[in-house]
Amino acid sequence: MADAAIRQTRPAAQPRVDIPEVTGLLLGTWASTRREVRELIKDPAFWRVDGMPMAEHRERVRGQVRLLVDAGGSRRAFPKEYGGLEDNGANIAGFEELVLADPSLQIKSGVQWGLFASAIHQLGTKKHWDAWLPGAMDFSIPGAFAMTETGHGSDVAAIGTTATYDPDAEEFVIHTPFRGAFKDYLGNAALHGVAATVFAQLITGGVNYGVHCFYVPIRDADGAFLPGVGGEDDGVKGGLNGIDNGRLHFDHVRVPRFNLLDRYGRVDADGVYSSDIPSPGRRFFTMLGALVQGRVSLDGAATTAAALAEHIAVTYANQRRQFDSGAGADEVVLLDYAKHQRRLLPLVAQTYAQFFAHDELLIAFDGVFSGAHDTPDEREDLETLAAALKPLSTWNALAAVQECREACGGAGFLAENRLTGLRHDLDVYVTFEGDNNVLLQLVGKRLLSDYATQFAGADAAALARFAVGQTAGKVFHGAGLRQLGQSVADFGSTARSVELGLRVEQQHELLSGRVQQMVADVAAALRPARKLSPVDAAALFNAHQSELIEAARAHGELLQWEAFSDAVAGLGDSGTRQVLSWLRDLFGLWLIEKHLAWHLVNGRLSAQRAASVTRYIDRLCARLRPHAQDLVDAFGFAPEHVRAPIASGAERERQEEARAHYAALAASGQAPVAEKAVTKR
Amino acid sequence: MADAAIRQTRPAAQPRVDIPEVTGLLLGTWASTRREVRELIKDPAFWRVDGMPMAEHRERVRGQVRLLVDAGGSRRAFPKEYGGLEDNGANIAGFEELVLADPSLQIKSGVQWGLFASAIHQLGTKKHWDAWLPGAMDFSIPGAFAMTETGHGSDVAAIGTTATYDPDAEEFVIHTPFRGAFKDYLGNAALHGVAATVFAQLITGGVNYGVHCFYVPIRDADGAFLPGVGGEDDGVKGGLNGIDNGRLHFDHVRVPRFNLLDRYGRVDADGVYSSDIPSPGRRFFTMLGALVQGRVSLDGAATTAAALAEHIAVTYANQRRQFDSGAGADEVVLLDYAKHQRRLLPLVAQTYAQFFAHDELLIAFDGVFSGAHDTPDEREDLETLAAALKPLSTWNALAAVQECREACGGAGFLAENRLTGLRHDLDVYVTFEGDNNVLLQLVGKRLLSDYATQFAGADAAALARFAVGQTAGKVFHGAGLRQLGQSVADFGSTARSVELGLRVEQQHELLSGRVQQMVADVAAALRPARKLSPVDAAALFNAHQSELIEAARAHGELLQWEAFSDAVAGLGDSGTRQVLSWLRDLFGLWLIEKHLAWHLVNGRLSAQRAASVTRYIDRLCARLRPHAQDLVDAFGFAPEHVRAPIASGAERERQEEARAHYAALAASGQAPVAEKAVTKR
Repeated sequence: MADAAIRQTRPAAQPRVDIPEVTGLLLGTWASTRREVRELIKDPAFWRVDGMPMAEHRERVRGQVRLLVDAGGSRRAFPKEYGGLEDNGANIAGFEELVLADPSLQIKSGVQWGLFASAIHQLGTKKHWDAWLPGAMDFSIPGAFAMTETGHGSDVAAIGTTATYDPDAEEFVIHTPFRGAFKDYLGNAALHGVAATVFAQLITGGVNYGVHCFYVPIRDADGAFLPGVGGEDDGVKGGLNGIDNGRLHFDHVRVPRFNLLDRYGRVDADGVYSSDIPSPGRRFFTMLGALVQGRVSLDGAATTAAALAEHIAVTYANQRRQFDSGAGADEVVLLDYAKHQRRLLPLVAQTYAQFFAHDELLIAFDGVFSGAHDTPDEREDLETLAAALKPLSTWNALAAVQECREACGGAGFLAENRLTGLRHDLDVYVTFEGDNNVLLQLVGKRLLSDYATQFAGADAAALARFAVGQTAGKVFHGAGLRQLGQSVADFGSTARSVELGLRVEQQHELLSGRVQQMVADVAAALRPARKLSPVDAAALFNAHQSELIEAARAHGELLQWEAFSDAVAGLGDSGTRQVLSWLRDLFGLWLIEKHLAWHLVNGRLSAQRAASVTRYIDRLCARLRPHAQDLVDAFGFAPEHVRAPIASGAERERQEEARAHYAALAASGQAPVAEKAVTKR
Repeated sequence: MADAAIRQTRPAAQPRVDIPEVTGLLLGTWASTRREVRELIKDPAFWRVDGMPMAEHRERVRGQVRLLVDAGGSRRAFPKEYGGLEDNGANIAGFEELVLADPSLQIKSGVQWGLFASAIHQLGTKKHWDAWLPGAMDFSIPGAFAMTETGHGSDVAAIGTTATYDPDAEEFVIHTPFRGAFKDYLGNAALHGVAATVFAQLITGGVNYGVHCFYVPIRDADGAFLPGVGGEDDGVKGGLNGIDNGRLHFDHVRVPRFNLLDRYGRVDADGVYSSDIPSPGRRFFTMLGALVQGRVSLDGAATTAAALAEHIAVTYANQRRQFDSGAGADEVVLLDYAKHQRRLLPLVAQTYAQFFAHDELLIAFDGVFSGAHDTPDEREDLETLAAALKPLSTWNALAAVQECREACGGAGFLAENRLTGLRHDLDVYVTFEGDNNVLLQLVGKRLLSDYATQFAGADAAALARFAVGQTAGKVFHGAGLRQLGQSVADFGSTARSVELGLRVEQQHELLSGRVQQMVADVAAALRPARKLSPVDAAALFNAHQSELIEAARAHGELLQWEAFSDAVAGLGDSGTRQVLSWLRDLFGLWLIEKHLAWHLVNGRLSAQRAASVTRYIDRLCARLRPHAQDLVDAFGFAPEHVRAPIASGAERERQEEARAHYAALAASGQAPVAEKAVTKR
């Protein structure tokens, strides 16, 4: 390995990242809360224990949730009146870090405070807060969030559970009409929950007012189901076995009228329904939108988990030696192999982009939920942004953790090295809190409707001109979508990145042009739908479903890239800025390479330029290789967060012990000679 | 959903596959053994129990191994003299099916008979067989296969364990010189093994003759380590927790000279070494090659596991309804969504290709190990074929199982539905028995050396002409590589598949042309290496490592596609042939789409033609959709193999119960009216 660029040692003249500065950048707006939680979870009481049987694991996590309460970790989101801090951004940031301790703890906390208590808080009113919020906050009322049914997951509007108002008794009758309407996959339902926030079709006076949420006690003080309530245990899952997921069903269970969480819809004593939001559809989406924090926190937690896996795999790859190079020297450190760089470094770049994009999401979330920026448009933008980012980061996390697992070989398969456990636990992140494909479809529809708004009245010819002509990032930037992304205000000195004509402006042009073109293409394809029967229109939409999802994915990628570029642009001129610019370029070119065929087919890149993308990525990998350890050290994990023996330095010690052994043997004159040397004689 | 093509019901005029015929085709040459084993494992005693603690799971699998012995399942590969059947193909086929029962059982059996007993059989001689083969066969000698060390996995030649001959005692001294030389990840090592086949550097007379294998007793009758032997438990793993993987180390442990498994290298009483294979390198690879069956069986087992996952996900997708189409009718069956078809059907096509390619691999394996086709060239071809196919099928299996898991949503995450357990257990298949990337590099090097042989003496101009000009599948077909694939002798009627000019001949041309071009490109890039210093040559090779691996992958894909095409060509004119031709086309076009950018950059496809690839895939998916259930039913799994409640028909019952409920409610006149209907009034 003669090439200086791929050596581990940094030439003195090279720029170097300032690790603490980058850590601060990655931890983002709520860095202090993140540091506080990371400090808390250095306590082994919070750590996942591999191979623990399900029943024990569930009890352990219940205990951890109580420890969190004791540490004040459950109150950040809630009103000061109830002992809370009213700090929504900090609340999410803090919970996300729990993924480092045990993803089951992160999700169990999410069930209790992000879903159950949050439903009381966001969908209920003061009388409900007074009644139940303190108990939900301090976990004296463990609760299930009973929305999903066996028969309906993503399609919440179609759930079968009913809540029928009985004006004589002034009660709602909660009922499960068939097996498919069992509430399912609910954390806290199998064992610990004593109450549930149950979503049901609100029926009063013979009219179905759609899905509303009800507070329903489910277990008595001894843990037995209350009359009419039944349930099942979901049993062992592919991961997250520290959470007691289960099913609930209701046989004409009566709750007082009081128990309707009535912020968005009320029923008076006589059974008359009223709401401040007259449109049933808008009301439904407003209620669901109030619970967006689940998606927000999954985006952040998945990113942190990916970072942990990359820290482990890169550290190991920097110590582990395997095969000599054929050049007669020592065995080669894994990360000096070009293929190994190719496998790991783009993942690190991706994770950086996700951290920056996530902080923007969290700022938007905090703006809405603090009330500082809480218009319907801002809420819709927040929901669209969450729906765009959560699918990408959760899928990327699975892919990254798996690549890290494989890059660590057999050692990566041992539970003690964390990677398989992370992979198992994170698996379900891609389908819960909104199936990723369904979320991307929502984003795609939003892109289409924004597109239609911009071109209201435009005729087909104008649309076609747009579709063909627009490649620069200008169109959306004047309109609704602009709010979802960030401007790339300052690209800094371009002299550094002119290489091969794939500098930052061109990355932006390619990524943003792709989103626009894809949306325009789908819009054009769907234009005839207006003239078709509903059946034929549905078939036409179905035929373009995949493209719409791909357009939404491209939009999410652009947002991530823009967030990364903004973060780099915010840095003063320094080694840090130089190295992070390379990393951003790697991310941008990696995205372009992933969709290279699209860029070629659509004439955005010549064949020659396209071929240079891959070569440039290889060069960027070699250039970043000396900084790889710094870049993963900047994630800021302490040994108590990493906990993987292979990333502890033990591997380096073993390799050095082996080399010392052979060196001593050679020096002693006792080393056996190679057979080859004998036969040559 | 008006489009007849995407309806579940088959129009009467459509072709239809003959399910039993296809099952026979997929089960391949050793179908009767596969059916026999599938019958055996209908017994619940063989099934994986989810959530079982590791200690219990290990004991359970040990018991299952004994049941297998009782059923005669362990003797197929071994000499008749010892009660065996000498049927190598049947042996592998039978073991592969065990993955349906519990992958831990498949791998534990593989450790005992495919590795430990096989080392005695393949690397030892008659005296060793007499001594240990009966005990290894009947599991009265549970054994570990002690090759891998903590410090060296894929690079077996560099292991640190030594076996130094002591002529005075006529013993070998087995020794572990440092921590990195601990034998590691060995099945049967943590608990059950009483002996091990230990790979060590054979040193006699001060000369190191390289890696040889020794039979070493490790535990006494009470299960305690023998003097000088030590070990550790690898603990919980990411899957396969029914196997007791662990570490072994040796402190000057003495074994008789007899214990050297001496088929390929002998040491006489005075310590003089001799071998029939003078080249140390060739001898080493011959010994490793004798153990190729691990890779062969992983290829088959991974394919069967992917098929099981696809059976579950397609069956569920054919029953589960979700969201109405907006056309006012019933909710839509998942598999009627274009995106869902796109997610699942190419995986089914891929798995079909893998079954056919695997049968060819198994035939080659049986030819070599039966002695019928056991020349050095045939052995090398077998090893290359196994190294090409195992990486593809094991990676594909992980991707397929994961996509199936996600396509089943939350239900897919419940352990009872099998998908997460399969995913966990199969994870390590991609790095054991040869890390996939390392194996593909071996294949790449073979491709390069065959290429060099063909062009011996060709000058640079001839090479360049070749690289530019050759796109048809002719060049390799006259040479060594031809033996690895199969000719596509008969493409059948092309009238069926002329659509869009992407018929079978063109698929072949694109896939084979890509392999040739990629190999030629790497060869051209590496040409200067001959004139460079070893250090610079190594750096040059490193810079092209990724491309070489990609070329090998393309080669493996071509082999799979050719095997599929041969299988289709072997069918008489029938509905089966028609449908499987579409499925083969889907596979071929899916491969082309995956590498579309390459085909564009290299001028193999015009932008227009490239754009039509995706559209054609969409059309093939719609055309195959009515046959989806037949295609996965043809995998031939009985309910005792599937065992996933969501694929049992329960989902269809639930959906029908819900629809019946709403129909009855509507008929009763008691159904609540929708709020919309009220507000409109």
